[in-house]
Amino acid sequence: MTATQPSSAWNIQQRPAAMTRRYEFASYAETRTFLDQLAALSERTGLHPNLNFARNHVSVSINAEGDALTDAEYAYAAEADTFAQQ
Amino acid sequence: MTATQPSSAWNIQQRPAAMTRRYEFASYAETRTFLDQLAALSERTGLHPNLNFARNHVSVSINAEGDALTDAEYAYAAEADTFAQQ
Repeated sequence: MTATQPSSAWNIQQRPAAMTRRYEFASYAETRTFLDQLAALSERTGLHPNLNFARNHVSVSINAEGDALTDAEYAYAAEADTFAQQ
Repeated sequence: MTATQPSSAWNIQQRPAAMTRRYEFASYAETRTFLDQLAALSERTGLHPNLNFARNHVSVSINAEGDALTDAEYAYAAEADTFAQQ
């Protein structure tokens, strides 16, 4: 199963394997909508990235459980991009 | 109006004026309940602390808008303690 491709806006690092991205939103309501979508995605996938947010931004940090990022983790990132339409 | 007293578990710093605290939760469901309560509190108060969370923890960072923390910011912290019962 090839991973859906996340946006090139993701910052991918190797040791330790992780990927991070910051999203900006025009309002707190939009920020909350995005957070709710990520929460539902976490419940569906069992993946719980570290999320850092305030009124108008959300930073998502996906830390690989093993030595390398998996298809599931790449797919989570790609789906987050879709939610944010960014 | 004297601020309701936040727990001594808060880490308070001066320059820049800020207060932070980390809460631990037994399940992701509890973490989400706490986050939803904070979101509603933010909408009521207009204060949007920086929140950092994953499956079982939430770190709240309240950065003073001015030079010093205000009663409203202390009250936010005290209310967060109440929500978390910690």
